[in-house]
Amino acid sequence: MRHVISITVNNKHGVLARIAGLFSARGYNIESLNVASLNENGMGSMTIVVHGEELVIEQIKKQLNKIIDVLKVVDVTGENYIDRELVLIKVASSSSIRSEIMQVANIFRAKIVDISPKTMTLEATGKEDKINALIGMLKPFNIKEIVCTGKIAMSREYVGKV
Amino acid sequence: MRHVISITVNNKHGVLARIAGLFSARGYNIESLNVASLNENGMGSMTIVVHGEELVIEQIKKQLNKIIDVLKVVDVTGENYIDRELVLIKVASSSSIRSEIMQVANIFRAKIVDISPKTMTLEATGKEDKINALIGMLKPFNIKEIVCTGKIAMSREYVGKV
Repeated sequence: MRHVISITVNNKHGVLARIAGLFSARGYNIESLNVASLNENGMGSMTIVVHGEELVIEQIKKQLNKIIDVLKVVDVTGENYIDRELVLIKVASSSSIRSEIMQVANIFRAKIVDISPKTMTLEATGKEDKINALIGMLKPFNIKEIVCTGKIAMSREYVGKV
Repeated sequence: MRHVISITVNNKHGVLARIAGLFSARGYNIESLNVASLNENGMGSMTIVVHGEELVIEQIKKQLNKIIDVLKVVDVTGENYIDRELVLIKVASSSSIRSEIMQVANIFRAKIVDISPKTMTLEATGKEDKINALIGMLKPFNIKEIVCTGKIAMSREYVGKV
């Protein structure tokens, strides 16, 4: 099963290597990972997406909690959560097809952040399936370069039933 | 000096642990890092932000290039590049201050992606200083939770002089 794990860490050196090691030691590949420093005190937020068996993921979470610089571990899988990722896509574009690409960008609410006589660069955020659909629509134009953040996730607050 | 390094990898298990190890072995802390799978073939994009001396970063880049599953290493530092990060911020908000928070969100072109009687969750993208300014403006309202992607970067295409 696919798990989205959100971790708050003391972003000291070696923490990332230890956490990555926990997964790779079990042969689990991290599908996506983000680490970012949050403030001057060295607090960091980390989001990991990984496929694995329930039991082993449970073990890994326990071991994460044992690391001193890990402050909080939340497995948002199964909860009601918001998830987003960000992508920059550079696509080949002569002036004649520019408007066609801009149409696609509009539909996906992507922003055009760079342009040159032969390329356009789009920025888009959203859920994974939206990003994949955008990439799919741009493929025929010849994608030159893609950089993507991993997924970040936050639990939804409102839990009332309708 | 601060370096932004963009790496294309075969996202196999253990690659991330090896790369994180290269930095931590030298006592360098990774300020932010993103890994994301790009397609079915297991290609992945990785962006690392790290502070370090020129010489050691140069060494690390050479060692990165030696890893078989590392396909391409580009140090965009010093180049003309676009960089973006994405943040989700959950802020305490009763109905009486909701419009005040919405004003701040509008100014920073942040989207409101979740709401409950006591909180609002904002999504924003931009450069680091914009994100920091937004966080600064929201602090007085009491920030409950932040998750942030690391920086992603892509070189600008148009290099002509004006």
